[in-house]
Amino acid sequence: MTVEQWERWREKIHRQLAEERDAAIALLADWVREPSVQGAERSIQEQIAERLAAMGLEVDLWIMEGDELLNHPYFVSPRTTFAESPNVVGVWKGTGGGRSLILNGHVDVVPAGDEQQWTDAPFSGRVLDGKLYGRGATDMKGGNLASLLAIQTLQALGVRLKGDVIYESVVEEESGGAGTLATILRGYRADAALVPEPTNMKIFPKQQGSMWFRLWVKGRSAHGGTRYEGVSAIEKSMRVLDAIRRLEQERNDRIDDPLYAKLPIPIPINVGVIEGGKWPSSVADLVKMEGRMGVAPGEEMEQAKAEMEQALSKLAEEDEWFRDHPVELEWFGARWVPGAVEMDHPLMELLAETYRQVMGEPPVIEASPWGTDGGLLTKLADTPAIVFGPGVTQVAHYPNEYIELEAVFQCAEIIALTMLKWCGIAEEGADEQ
Amino acid sequence: MTVEQWERWREKIHRQLAEERDAAIALLADWVREPSVQGAERSIQEQIAERLAAMGLEVDLWIMEGDELLNHPYFVSPRTTFAESPNVVGVWKGTGGGRSLILNGHVDVVPAGDEQQWTDAPFSGRVLDGKLYGRGATDMKGGNLASLLAIQTLQALGVRLKGDVIYESVVEEESGGAGTLATILRGYRADAALVPEPTNMKIFPKQQGSMWFRLWVKGRSAHGGTRYEGVSAIEKSMRVLDAIRRLEQERNDRIDDPLYAKLPIPIPINVGVIEGGKWPSSVADLVKMEGRMGVAPGEEMEQAKAEMEQALSKLAEEDEWFRDHPVELEWFGARWVPGAVEMDHPLMELLAETYRQVMGEPPVIEASPWGTDGGLLTKLADTPAIVFGPGVTQVAHYPNEYIELEAVFQCAEIIALTMLKWCGIAEEGADEQ
Repeated sequence: MTVEQWERWREKIHRQLAEERDAAIALLADWVREPSVQGAERSIQEQIAERLAAMGLEVDLWIMEGDELLNHPYFVSPRTTFAESPNVVGVWKGTGGGRSLILNGHVDVVPAGDEQQWTDAPFSGRVLDGKLYGRGATDMKGGNLASLLAIQTLQALGVRLKGDVIYESVVEEESGGAGTLATILRGYRADAALVPEPTNMKIFPKQQGSMWFRLWVKGRSAHGGTRYEGVSAIEKSMRVLDAIRRLEQERNDRIDDPLYAKLPIPIPINVGVIEGGKWPSSVADLVKMEGRMGVAPGEEMEQAKAEMEQALSKLAEEDEWFRDHPVELEWFGARWVPGAVEMDHPLMELLAETYRQVMGEPPVIEASPWGTDGGLLTKLADTPAIVFGPGVTQVAHYPNEYIELEAVFQCAEIIALTMLKWCGIAEEGADEQ
Repeated sequence: MTVEQWERWREKIHRQLAEERDAAIALLADWVREPSVQGAERSIQEQIAERLAAMGLEVDLWIMEGDELLNHPYFVSPRTTFAESPNVVGVWKGTGGGRSLILNGHVDVVPAGDEQQWTDAPFSGRVLDGKLYGRGATDMKGGNLASLLAIQTLQALGVRLKGDVIYESVVEEESGGAGTLATILRGYRADAALVPEPTNMKIFPKQQGSMWFRLWVKGRSAHGGTRYEGVSAIEKSMRVLDAIRRLEQERNDRIDDPLYAKLPIPIPINVGVIEGGKWPSSVADLVKMEGRMGVAPGEEMEQAKAEMEQALSKLAEEDEWFRDHPVELEWFGARWVPGAVEMDHPLMELLAETYRQVMGEPPVIEASPWGTDGGLLTKLADTPAIVFGPGVTQVAHYPNEYIELEAVFQCAEIIALTMLKWCGIAEEGADEQ
């Protein structure tokens, strides 16, 4: 196909998206108004399944369960039942002979946090100055909408593709990818995948992995009025936090991948939860901390674990309290496998090309500062996954999370064009004039 | 009375206590086996009321309530109902013409803390090598037993006193003295009071007061993978803890009362509880800390509060985050009024004299490193209160709390002799031979 023909496709897709714009924004607002925190995804997933069925996709909605999943080495989840968290996959069957594509996105969102820091209600779905606000708008319901619009737009233009397009609306990404793991065990795979997580429209062939950890810091209780007779687990936790900062520094000093050049801390270690002590006038004898450790794309997760263990055991050298009362370390909850796709993978080249076609400039290509379900697809499903989506990373997990609506439509346009080229055109719709 | 006659009294009391020893230890074990944490004091209080009644005291058991108490400026409590926490007072009426004495002690105990740090069960009441183990053994059921034994022993010797002895078994000391406040509002007062808190047999004419505070430290949430885009309330809490340490240093540098000379930190500030963040891979946007601030005997509580406020507001000078996000400070829960009795108060002199008589050496006189209900008695009930009791301060609020049984009996002997001299002897029992 000539450059001119592709440009006509771009224009048709662009016009079609413009027609669907108002309805699409209303749909995104509906999605954001669903507070689909973990354990409460049923409502939004049933709506999505219904919509995919109405679009003619083969829809699969199921509750994840069974030993194969629960005992899988890559299964991690704080939960053991997913009764209110169905997974949904819709397959837009191709006519055959083309390359298949997975569009993977999660509907679970992190909790709203301190509601007083939100200007509107956390799940408002309010639209103001081209932005749609609410928890999950950017992470990642905006990206999910872009994927859905890409399919819907090609359908509206009368297109049929040769390869299958597999739309995966998964749960449980925010604590480690059990939803995507379940799609893989159920047999879904493809020649490649796009994961429209909020990359601010950058293309991320590499994704940082991560693991959750829990630390138990010990002290010795005493009456607060003679606190010097006890050992405060809260004060000892400050030492532990210092040690974690130093470990983070060491690990990041080693990163020389140019894809990470612009990130202040390529693989951060975040301590997100602290909890300890039971009584204001007693010295705290135990503090629990929970956090997330970043894992570099080329790094083995076991290697990263060993470094954390070593950093904690070195505490005994600077403070003998830790010799007799070592910090206890557990790996729990979530884990995201790091992912990496070659820079010259055909989908990388195609995505960069359609990006240039739509945006009029070359894309920024970087490594993601956080894990996604892309790692599981690449590693376990032999489905190389690229992360690319609308939404400013800086607002994900923040109060007043929002998404720039214009980016959602630009992303939909890029995905639709990419699908056309990747899967191949079997039937074209009649031109409107 | 001659020195020889007093020495005969001491011997009679000593012998009588030796006879009651086994039964007394069994009673203390029973008391310690009652897990009388706050809100669960009914069972032990009913047993004590029954025992006092059997000893012929006028017993008053009541549930504290009413506006006068609940709206009193010195009322502080985390609770609004005391339905399971009756107060008990027993009055051993004198024949008249003598000085009255309050024996005040609390039956509420702090929670056991991390049970894994206890060798036995926290409420075992186990006796080993002259020590009785369990939460509350030293703080302050051992002291309560010493008071009870003093009365019981004089009764067994056939003594009647001129002045009243008022045995107060109160609740709620561990969070600020509402139990003792209720006894004062109910009209109980005396010419002086003894509070047998665990002073390790030192005499404390001055008691440190204290207040509970709660701090809210703010951050700004972000995804843990780009943690540098947020502000961690956990890291900011480390700064707040530093500021509190500096304030504690300044406040203690000012203390020059020789009664405090042996204490490493005369008026400590203890942060006993920390809690913040909701998600391991989010930057924590809010941390709560709770603690206890010591107040010097001569200090106004409002002055101490102002110093804490100032220390927190100075944080803005070293870290501009705090300028726009100041730490919020609340005073809540418990408060103990500092207390001070003159060194030459007649009960001080008498107590020191009987101490020498029983122990064969002069007492150690210091200021207490923690608040007691004595402050309320001194300040509100015009009842100068001295704190003196068995038990090693270092084990109060610790795992494996215990009391040295020998000290309980020594203390009972000293209190019994003191009562004889303070209240005056109206009838002596017949000598046994």
